[in-house]
Amino acid sequence: MKRTSFADMDCSIARTLEVIGEWWTMLILRESFNGVRRFDGFQERLGIARNVLAARLQRLVDSGILERRLYQERPERYEYRLTEKGRDLYPVLMSCLRWGDKWAVTEAGPPILLTHKCGHAPGMILTCQHCGEEVNPREVAVRRRDSTPGIGGERVAAG
Amino acid sequence: MKRTSFADMDCSIARTLEVIGEWWTMLILRESFNGVRRFDGFQERLGIARNVLAARLQRLVDSGILERRLYQERPERYEYRLTEKGRDLYPVLMSCLRWGDKWAVTEAGPPILLTHKCGHAPGMILTCQHCGEEVNPREVAVRRRDSTPGIGGERVAAG
Repeated sequence: MKRTSFADMDCSIARTLEVIGEWWTMLILRESFNGVRRFDGFQERLGIARNVLAARLQRLVDSGILERRLYQERPERYEYRLTEKGRDLYPVLMSCLRWGDKWAVTEAGPPILLTHKCGHAPGMILTCQHCGEEVNPREVAVRRRDSTPGIGGERVAAG
Repeated sequence: MKRTSFADMDCSIARTLEVIGEWWTMLILRESFNGVRRFDGFQERLGIARNVLAARLQRLVDSGILERRLYQERPERYEYRLTEKGRDLYPVLMSCLRWGDKWAVTEAGPPILLTHKCGHAPGMILTCQHCGEEVNPREVAVRRRDSTPGIGGERVAAG
C-alpha cells in the first residue's frame, strides 16, 4: 500500500500519525510501558518478525521516542527505553485502550485489567486544566493559527 | 505493504488500531469533529482521492463509527455523521493533537488553536475517576484478565 506522508500537513494529529502510525509501533510502545526493554523481549511478546521489529525500533530511536542504551559490553547488548517524548504518548495509548475496552471487546470483557494506586481502575477523563470540567467536543472552538480557511477551520458542530 | 490483522489479538489497543489505524481514517474523523458531513466537504478539506475517501467512509460506516443518512431525495444525497461510538474517539484524537502540539510542531507553534467554553485552551489530563488524581503510568498495575503470562502481563516499570 502506497502512503502519503503526513509530516508536511500543518496539523498536529497528522504529524503524530506520521511518527506513531506504523502498524506495529503502538504495540511496541505498549510493551515499553509494560517494562519491556530488550529486543528479544519485544520479539517474544509480539511475535513480530525480527527484521520488522528492528526497523520499527530504529524508527522509534530516530524519532526520539525510545533511547538505545548499552547494558552489556561483551558481547555488546542494547536496551530500548522510553524518553520523555515517548512517555508523553501514554495518554494516546490509554485512550485507545479505553475505547477498545468499551467498543471492541468480546463477551469475556476487557483483556487487560488496570489498577491505579488508589485501588480502582483509572478512568480516562479529558479534563480542562483551567476550569477542571470534563471536556465535551461541542464546547470547544477550533480555529487555525493563521485563520485561513481550510483544514481545521472554524468548526460547526460535532456529530 | 502487507499487514497483519490485529483484530484477533486479545488486546484493546490492537483492536482499536484495527478500526482506526488506516492512514486517512483519523483525519476523516478530525473533519467529522470539525462539523464536516458531506463527501465533497471531506474531499475538499483532505485533498484525498475520491475512491480512497469512499472506501474509508464505507469502512467507518461498517464499523459503526459514522452513520450514513439521506439528506436529499432528488438526487439522492447522503451525509456522514458521528455515532456515539465515533464520538467516543474524541480522547484518542485529542491526545494525538496534544502530543503533536508539544513534540511535532514547527517554530510557528501549534497550527490549530482550541478554546474551551471557559475561555482557555483545554488541557488533556488523564485523571482517575475514583481518586481524581492525574494518572502516572508508574502508578498503574497491569495484569491480564486470565492472568496467564504473555502480552500485557505483569508490568515492571515504565521508561
